Amino acid sequence: MLMEPMRFHLIKPLLRHMPILQWGRRYNRDALEGDLLAAVIVTIMLIPQSLAYALLAGLPAEMGLYASILPLVAYTIFGTSRALAVGPVAVVSLMTAAAVGNLALQGTAEYIAAAIALAFLSGVILLVMGIFRLGFLANFLSHPVIAGFITASGIIIATSQMKHILGIDASGHNLAELIGSLVSQIGQTNLWTLIIGASATAFLFWVRTGLKPMLQSAGLSPRLAGNLAKAGPVGAVVITTVLSWALGLHERGVAIVGDVPQGLPPLTLPRFDMDVWSSLFGSALLISIIGFVESVSVAQTLAAKKRQRITPDQELIGLGASNIAASISGGYPVTGGFARSVVNFDAGAKTPAAGAFTAIGIAIAALLLTPLLYFLPKATLAATIIVAVLSLVDFSILRTTWGYSKTDFAAVTATILLTLGFGVEIGVSAGVILSIFLFLYRTSRPHIAEVGLVPGTEHFRNINRHKVETRPDILTIRVDENLYFANARYLEDYIYDRVVGDDDLKHVVLMCSAVNTIDSSALESLEAIDHRLRDMGLMLHLSEIKGPVMDRLSRTHFLHDLSGKVFLSQYEAVKCLTS
Amino acid sequence: MLMEPMRFHLIKPLLRHMPILQWGRRYNRDALEGDLLAAVIVTIMLIPQSLAYALLAGLPAEMGLYASILPLVAYTIFGTSRALAVGPVAVVSLMTAAAVGNLALQGTAEYIAAAIALAFLSGVILLVMGIFRLGFLANFLSHPVIAGFITASGIIIATSQMKHILGIDASGHNLAELIGSLVSQIGQTNLWTLIIGASATAFLFWVRTGLKPMLQSAGLSPRLAGNLAKAGPVGAVVITTVLSWALGLHERGVAIVGDVPQGLPPLTLPRFDMDVWSSLFGSALLISIIGFVESVSVAQTLAAKKRQRITPDQELIGLGASNIAASISGGYPVTGGFARSVVNFDAGAKTPAAGAFTAIGIAIAALLLTPLLYFLPKATLAATIIVAVLSLVDFSILRTTWGYSKTDFAAVTATILLTLGFGVEIGVSAGVILSIFLFLYRTSRPHIAEVGLVPGTEHFRNINRHKVETRPDILTIRVDENLYFANARYLEDYIYDRVVGDDDLKHVVLMCSAVNTIDSSALESLEAIDHRLRDMGLMLHLSEIKGPVMDRLSRTHFLHDLSGKVFLSQYEAVKCLTS
Repeated sequence: MLMEPMRFHLIKPLLRHMPILQWGRRYNRDALEGDLLAAVIVTIMLIPQSLAYALLAGLPAEMGLYASILPLVAYTIFGTSRALAVGPVAVVSLMTAAAVGNLALQGTAEYIAAAIALAFLSGVILLVMGIFRLGFLANFLSHPVIAGFITASGIIIATSQMKHILGIDASGHNLAELIGSLVSQIGQTNLWTLIIGASATAFLFWVRTGLKPMLQSAGLSPRLAGNLAKAGPVGAVVITTVLSWALGLHERGVAIVGDVPQGLPPLTLPRFDMDVWSSLFGSALLISIIGFVESVSVAQTLAAKKRQRITPDQELIGLGASNIAASISGGYPVTGGFARSVVNFDAGAKTPAAGAFTAIGIAIAALLLTPLLYFLPKATLAATIIVAVLSLVDFSILRTTWGYSKTDFAAVTATILLTLGFGVEIGVSAGVILSIFLFLYRTSRPHIAEVGLVPGTEHFRNINRHKVETRPDILTIRVDENLYFANARYLEDYIYDRVVGDDDLKHVVLMCSAVNTIDSSALESLEAIDHRLRDMGLMLHLSEIKGPVMDRLSRTHFLHDLSGKVFLSQYEAVKCLTS
Repeated sequence: MLMEPMRFHLIKPLLRHMPILQWGRRYNRDALEGDLLAAVIVTIMLIPQSLAYALLAGLPAEMGLYASILPLVAYTIFGTSRALAVGPVAVVSLMTAAAVGNLALQGTAEYIAAAIALAFLSGVILLVMGIFRLGFLANFLSHPVIAGFITASGIIIATSQMKHILGIDASGHNLAELIGSLVSQIGQTNLWTLIIGASATAFLFWVRTGLKPMLQSAGLSPRLAGNLAKAGPVGAVVITTVLSWALGLHERGVAIVGDVPQGLPPLTLPRFDMDVWSSLFGSALLISIIGFVESVSVAQTLAAKKRQRITPDQELIGLGASNIAASISGGYPVTGGFARSVVNFDAGAKTPAAGAFTAIGIAIAALLLTPLLYFLPKATLAATIIVAVLSLVDFSILRTTWGYSKTDFAAVTATILLTLGFGVEIGVSAGVILSIFLFLYRTSRPHIAEVGLVPGTEHFRNINRHKVETRPDILTIRVDENLYFANARYLEDYIYDRVVGDDDLKHVVLMCSAVNTIDSSALESLEAIDHRLRDMGLMLHLSEIKGPVMDRLSRTHFLHDLSGKVFLSQYEAVKCLTS
């Protein structure tokens, strides 16, 4: 009897975090049809991608499939987006390779175990962020930093796959090492691999741009043509696998996928190893935040198209559950993918159930199709990756930030260069720190204008921009920024600089129309300014203080001790001080 | 011939950084008299303090004297404050002990060498900050963090000196360890030491509060009485030294200063050791910034009293030169001290030359008086420190921040607790990181108000605070914060949350009267909001955009692509949208 309310206490918050209980109740035949069709198309798209991204992460191909089964089911239960398709994605796969590569050698059991542990840690971090509503942490990744990071990652990924296209061994932790390694090995190029790789790449580029128009002009409906074009990568996989088998290409030096275990993913718990976990923690945090940011922006864009909405904090829980599901089923870190979510949406997915149906599709593939992948050339998977990631590379962010904001330009340039030069983790961390620093630096030197009265009006404007009236005994300063610790001293310096030596001056008026907050440091600075001006025989006045700021100031002694007065408007201040 | 212009190129910027060339030219008899009197009083005050702070830093007493000679001369040449008295101070001595204590044991040659290296590093950091005008970095130390840090440091310092008052061995890196160590050793208390220590402490407290009024009521002028009271610590030193010698207290277990080398400081270069330097770098940076912040605020307060001004970037160079001077003359990190600068100012110091005269005074003491210090009880120096630092302990910052700003209260509380619990370096670093984080957190959730028209006016106010008119088809939102990466997503979420499900809505107007900047991330968010609102069949409008923000926006496609319009005033917006 005693147990009942307690159990309910535990279950109720859990239920609140399961959106499936809401949309599941209203599930109907219409939704089922949409979800099933979307699931078929996404499954066809996801099979080659899953294999390819596992390769990119340095993991066995089947781990890509495993990461596309249980995580999708978990997201169906806990996620809020109706179109988001979860699974392995390019940037997170690259980050996984970078993180795990610090701990173990590719191809070893330790490497695989570390990737699984990384998914678990990342899942726990996302869950904790979701439960404690820490989603705002993702806000510190500014758009330019993300854009720069993804562009640079795309370049690194495409370059890293060139070795599979050429059939050579090459490696490196940054772009220079990768290119150097490729160039030094280029003499070892395997001609057969190059033929397969280059034609697969060309074919996939053509599928992207030329296939759909061709099918349409052959009389197919745009929708059917579009869906068929999505099968392009599978087409490349089938054709090159058949060729590879028929021509015995692996005997001519073409690397093939080889044995892929047939069956469903093994259910295991990640091995707890404090050393491994603590050294993976930072990487897991970065992967979690970047995965979340990418995923949530895709989900929001798609939701808005149907006037639906997603809950970012619940998305954290959905992605957290997905990653934990990935780790207990032999997968590696996953998140919502951009391209496949758009495909899912366009194909008519109505609810997260589409993800569960996709999971069934991938599970069937893992059960039945894996033996057929034996002869699949790795060059084909590399071609899939290259074509997919080159669409991520977009330098236009450099042009737009250059025109709009030089500090944002600096942040994006640094992120791109550091990512290319020192790898993904240093690149994105430096980008985040730099954008915070630049923001603080910018607000630490606020725009301060000396203002005067526009003749015939009650308005005050910058004396350097407008023809205005000033008086030698009154100095009016307008600060266009919140006053807080980072700029409090700057304001002090500005006022002393301006005041010292100006012997006609009697009054200094600080016009606060653009000040939304004054923190304790700034309050102390205002007190210091007041004391020092008083020592110089001057009075400090304030004008146009906002309501909430005034509420706070009223709770202190400052207004009481102030040498001058507080005026509702600047016009009133000047009128009163000159009368 | 060729050399001449080149040499001039090198010399000119150097000369620009030597303020002595300006004030030196106008030096006259009046200034000389003021400076000399101030120098005598500061010298008398500085001798016991120098010895005591060296003890606090765990260094031989003479290093305190050495740190009060050449550094003062360097500041005279390069500093801009006319009253700042440079030398060893309590907080920096504590930080030196913490930094050097990580590397070597007190009493070893390595410990001394590390303290000298720390002064050199700190000097170089300050110089570089001055030359590259990086003084704004100090702004990231908020007032509450500094106040909390200094209060906690005062408590740690006073507690650490109790062992000298009791005559026992005790040590610890944080308050709990210190107290635990004191308590466990208290049985070993040396009675003679305790008598000397306790009476010196009581005497010095009385000197602070009771001596000046007594001298005044005995007929002395307030100024003379004040100056005589400054000699209190020297009186304590003389009396206890004589007692210690006469009663042979060192044979009764009272710790005495012992041999202090007689003569001027040795001139040497700090030994370069990459390992030592790199492990001291973080500490040197903290010491530099905290020393600079303390020093510059004292200097500014005193300069304002005479309508003079100091140049913060030049102060960095002055303090940098002082620390390098300290390191090449066997001293340790120095900065401008609060108490002695006020004394210097009150005693009539007119120019930085007062510092040079003080240096001569201390040099004479080092040459002639050091043998007399042999019998000086360490308990007396400890009493000097305790009385000096207890004036730093001030918990009122907790009360004022609690009333004014809870985030500032959180920052100050964390700084105090972490400094007491984990030591000075962790305490102040955590305080800085926390205040930046709290600032970003606060601006990441800006105040957003839905506004409506105040009837009969053209003003718009918060619908929750005022009786205003709204229309079901128009939603007007006012954001009271700059729009930047940390709050861009928050605004997106806010708008979707508000809009989804409100089917009457046709227009969303964003009122930007409090927005001083819109960065690239926020611009992208506005574009996303516009796209998504359009997908929902809504239009986004902007109103009351500030001039500089509008200038920037005009350089982008945003205004051109916007679904709605830009209105000069919110009133105009509503009038136009309803007509």
